Amino acid sequence: MTYQELFNNIVLKNSFLCVGLDSDISKIPSHLLTAEDPIFEFNKQIVDATHQYTVAYKPNTAFYETNGAQGWQTLQKTAEYIRTNYPDIFLIADAKRGDIGNTSLMYAKAFLQNMPFDSVTVAPYMGEDSVMPFLQYNDKWVILLALTSNKGANDFQFMNNGESLFEKVLRVSQNWGNHQQMMYVVGATQARMLSNIRKIVPDHFLLVPGVGAQGGSLAEVAEFGMNAHCGLLVNSSRAIIYADNSENFAQAAAQNAKEVQEEMKFLLEKFLP
Amino acid sequence: MTYQELFNNIVLKNSFLCVGLDSDISKIPSHLLTAEDPIFEFNKQIVDATHQYTVAYKPNTAFYETNGAQGWQTLQKTAEYIRTNYPDIFLIADAKRGDIGNTSLMYAKAFLQNMPFDSVTVAPYMGEDSVMPFLQYNDKWVILLALTSNKGANDFQFMNNGESLFEKVLRVSQNWGNHQQMMYVVGATQARMLSNIRKIVPDHFLLVPGVGAQGGSLAEVAEFGMNAHCGLLVNSSRAIIYADNSENFAQAAAQNAKEVQEEMKFLLEKFLP
Repeated sequence: MTYQELFNNIVLKNSFLCVGLDSDISKIPSHLLTAEDPIFEFNKQIVDATHQYTVAYKPNTAFYETNGAQGWQTLQKTAEYIRTNYPDIFLIADAKRGDIGNTSLMYAKAFLQNMPFDSVTVAPYMGEDSVMPFLQYNDKWVILLALTSNKGANDFQFMNNGESLFEKVLRVSQNWGNHQQMMYVVGATQARMLSNIRKIVPDHFLLVPGVGAQGGSLAEVAEFGMNAHCGLLVNSSRAIIYADNSENFAQAAAQNAKEVQEEMKFLLEKFLP
Repeated sequence: MTYQELFNNIVLKNSFLCVGLDSDISKIPSHLLTAEDPIFEFNKQIVDATHQYTVAYKPNTAFYETNGAQGWQTLQKTAEYIRTNYPDIFLIADAKRGDIGNTSLMYAKAFLQNMPFDSVTVAPYMGEDSVMPFLQYNDKWVILLALTSNKGANDFQFMNNGESLFEKVLRVSQNWGNHQQMMYVVGATQARMLSNIRKIVPDHFLLVPGVGAQGGSLAEVAEFGMNAHCGLLVNSSRAIIYADNSENFAQAAAQNAKEVQEEMKFLLEKFLP
């Protein structure tokens, strides 16, 4: 998917919502547990109910790997189901991978070639040659971790020698790829920092976790982070997919996604030039 | 496996060799391609031929993920085969994972509970809560990336504000776990830096990639990095597993492993107190 196509979808749907498919067998409604592949069934119903309110889905690979080869199969089926039925969706493999070049190439193939993901989240610690193999695919994206939304972000990401580590990641990585193929993870728990971040990466999309369960404010993210092409994908996982634990779970998820989308419509009207 | 058990195995085998099972379908001998699971067959024969010269095996997960659910099955079978047949082997999942707490917990389960790995490599960028879930298992280990052996290590790991980022990772992470449950990845391409690293982490084991194909010197690693419990696992992947591409590949791998082990025996005699 291209930068322009993604922006068009945002305008069309009045939404910059990404739904995180952190689907956990211990948290899904119990009536699904008799299905052949309960997690896939859960994902399918969540996606069918919420796709009109969202522009992206983001399965986190950990929730699939924890179920071994079967989980990997579920991940693949989920990605293929979304790609086939909702081709306008931007698909993110939240994998936080990164390794030496010949090894990152294997990860890139796994997600961008063998599975129909549009993008992979990548950790920056190992530098340029760990990221480049993910940038070799046309219209596919790297989403590089910059400033994460967890407490541990404070341990290293703010290390400062004139600029902080996460700022250096934002600055240096722009030599590796442009805003048409690279996004950044920037946590919403630090929404006010988005204005400074926008000085370094004015045009890039930012994938923003941490709204909802982790406490970030959507209005602040839009106020400080939106650019002329929206430039934001705001993720919500638990607040949407676990909105309800009954047979009504998908409708409840849709209702919560719809409420977020309505706020996003308001914010797009307010802040998009 | 405990610290003492690992040290005992090193003394018993006169080896601190770790063999990296970066097993790539495009590089294994062609006569294996007709096997039901060619990569597993390759791994099995490599392990059967080399186990007497090595104390650890390290499959890199990228080489398995790239084959999807089938690859994940191969990874699981490989880990179980080694655990069952060679219980003295220290098993490393080279996965370089790391995510927010509840997500890292899923990764920890995948490798340390659902598969019989002794350890997982973890990336430090997201800080303490991304690492702690891996430290909840008795006699299981985190191997934290500190200084990697690739060119991109220079992009961020040497960022310096009085100490460099990789030194800060070594220092701060000692509050998360002790040398009986945490190791560090330190690339051999910077072998002379090992004496400084030993000032920060005198007792920890270091997992050292980059000897062989990436150009590091084993003798220098031993001279500058060995401590009273050896404290080193030196990894070799391609130089051993791809020593030969014929039906003789396993014997050739064993011969190369044996040569490394013999040098390690010499170095243990020279540098172990």
